[in-house]
Amino acid sequence: MNPFWSQLARELSPYVPGEQPRMENLVKLNTNESPFGPSPLALAAMREAAADTLRLYPDPEATELREALAVHHGVRPEQVFVGNGSDEVLAHAFAALLKQPKKLLFPDVTYSFYPVWARLFGLAFETVELDGGLHIRVEDYRREAGAILIANPNAPTGIALSRAEIARLLEEHSDIPVVIDEAYVDFGGESAVPLIDDHPNLLVVQTMSKSRALAGLRVGYALGGAGLIEALRRVKDSFNSYPLGQIAQAGAAASVRDDGYFRANCARVIAGREAMTQELTGLGFEVLPSSANFVFARHKAQGGAEIAAGLRERTVLVRHFSAARIAAYLRITVGTEDDTRRLISALVEILGD
Amino acid sequence: MNPFWSQLARELSPYVPGEQPRMENLVKLNTNESPFGPSPLALAAMREAAADTLRLYPDPEATELREALAVHHGVRPEQVFVGNGSDEVLAHAFAALLKQPKKLLFPDVTYSFYPVWARLFGLAFETVELDGGLHIRVEDYRREAGAILIANPNAPTGIALSRAEIARLLEEHSDIPVVIDEAYVDFGGESAVPLIDDHPNLLVVQTMSKSRALAGLRVGYALGGAGLIEALRRVKDSFNSYPLGQIAQAGAAASVRDDGYFRANCARVIAGREAMTQELTGLGFEVLPSSANFVFARHKAQGGAEIAAGLRERTVLVRHFSAARIAAYLRITVGTEDDTRRLISALVEILGD
Repeated sequence: MNPFWSQLARELSPYVPGEQPRMENLVKLNTNESPFGPSPLALAAMREAAADTLRLYPDPEATELREALAVHHGVRPEQVFVGNGSDEVLAHAFAALLKQPKKLLFPDVTYSFYPVWARLFGLAFETVELDGGLHIRVEDYRREAGAILIANPNAPTGIALSRAEIARLLEEHSDIPVVIDEAYVDFGGESAVPLIDDHPNLLVVQTMSKSRALAGLRVGYALGGAGLIEALRRVKDSFNSYPLGQIAQAGAAASVRDDGYFRANCARVIAGREAMTQELTGLGFEVLPSSANFVFARHKAQGGAEIAAGLRERTVLVRHFSAARIAAYLRITVGTEDDTRRLISALVEILGD
Repeated sequence: MNPFWSQLARELSPYVPGEQPRMENLVKLNTNESPFGPSPLALAAMREAAADTLRLYPDPEATELREALAVHHGVRPEQVFVGNGSDEVLAHAFAALLKQPKKLLFPDVTYSFYPVWARLFGLAFETVELDGGLHIRVEDYRREAGAILIANPNAPTGIALSRAEIARLLEEHSDIPVVIDEAYVDFGGESAVPLIDDHPNLLVVQTMSKSRALAGLRVGYALGGAGLIEALRRVKDSFNSYPLGQIAQAGAAASVRDDGYFRANCARVIAGREAMTQELTGLGFEVLPSSANFVFARHKAQGGAEIAAGLRERTVLVRHFSAARIAAYLRITVGTEDDTRRLISALVEILGD
């Protein structure tokens, strides 16, 4: 062990992101990226921002982007916080809101970065089991807690809670912060954003990496009462004053303003998900009901690790998690029609062996 | 106080960055930006990267950029860590290396973000006084310490330590991590990078915001032994796996490869600094010997706050710090020839009143 590491550096268990290999002819269905590109207006805005003015620091408040998001979501700009991907926004939420004297609750099967942030910021947490069908049950959160964090739709299951269920969760825990991570909400979930004004304990986190096809730009944001947003700002201004560069701010704002492109893209992904679900079901997969841009599916006869390895040999990447409860499943991103065709032929080969 | 804030959020004292006003006809000499734009090759690379491939996550290892930096600095890629501005890199260094059971030492007059990060990560620190001439004296650091952090050249003074002095500091403290923040080193300082191979306790942090005119892109990096770099990676992968987007990686790598443009730009800034120093001296300022892209100067007759206010009325922005030891001084960024002309005429008006 290197003698210069802090105790914290020694104790961390870093998150392992999905691979980003640079392989030829790859069908990449492992990291829930959009199969279609970003808004052409966003690309044009980014090209225009690649200019001599990059010599200047960006607006540390990201005013234009926050205003665009406020209009899109029907909130005020002081109810919007932006950061370098929703991962950074969530990290700040751990430090600013979720770190409480009592334990943080989140599901036992969910985004695997949550326990990593908890360790980084020294939070005690307790996981709450999904039910037998891998659903989150709001009533299971009726226990002592300092804060609650729910991904909705949940990952990697893709299963969503309704807005009414989220409202019930907020009412039952009105004295503690509740963070809803809506990374995948635009593919059929019901956003909790309309609940913000009645629930000062609610922070909603969204990302531009999925439904806006800007994973490569790194922009995420949070919406909530101005008091919660101010806590995030205090942590951000104690960490990095300028998390978003000029090009990221310009591209993200243009994407938010291009609502037609956004809606059409989400609809295409949803149609692709339904088509892929049918095909997988036909091959003997049980596919959980997904409100996301991926499906979570297990085969009646073959194991998850085995199928993932077979797909990999055929240059099709999907994500497999080895945690006991979900080891039988594969998380498969919705791709283009051609991606789905190649996935299905590879599966036919593997399952026919 | 909002009832949902964590104790940490309540206790922070966030950093206050220099203003980024959008005023017409402004002479902006307050945040040490480059007066000249970035490399045209960097701009071209960024425009090219604004493409459909932004739908994909960026390379979380930033391989191409780290390789370009390794070539430029004569180190190996595993000795390079990159982040979202050197502020993020420094923040990670606080968590990964500088947080030790014994106190962190840094100068009493230096980059004012250092105590902010110390509070965010719960580090005990002790400041070491600059001498009467506002110089760092290496011998003053001979005291019990868990880690040392030095900006070289120091900010806001602009005064540099020689490489031999840094080597002495490293040898006298070979058992603890020493971080040298070289944000301004390219304007005449001696970098500590050649000391890395002999000093496994040395981490050097640099930025693309100043000498590479990319403040608006947000790219910084650290160079050091592979063991120290690994500690930074562990913290980064516990915070945000993808701190640099595709456009930032492409633009930064192209900038690093354009060595001719970089050297010419640094030389132009140094020439501008010498010319501005002469003019200020002629107006009755004492100008500290600067190795940075700014000068730190006080007037023999008028106070710093007063002159800064007078300049502001004339749409010339400089930075004034109210801390007792330096309240007489102004920190003035080196601008274009025209910026300097306008600064000097404004000063003539103010001082002639």
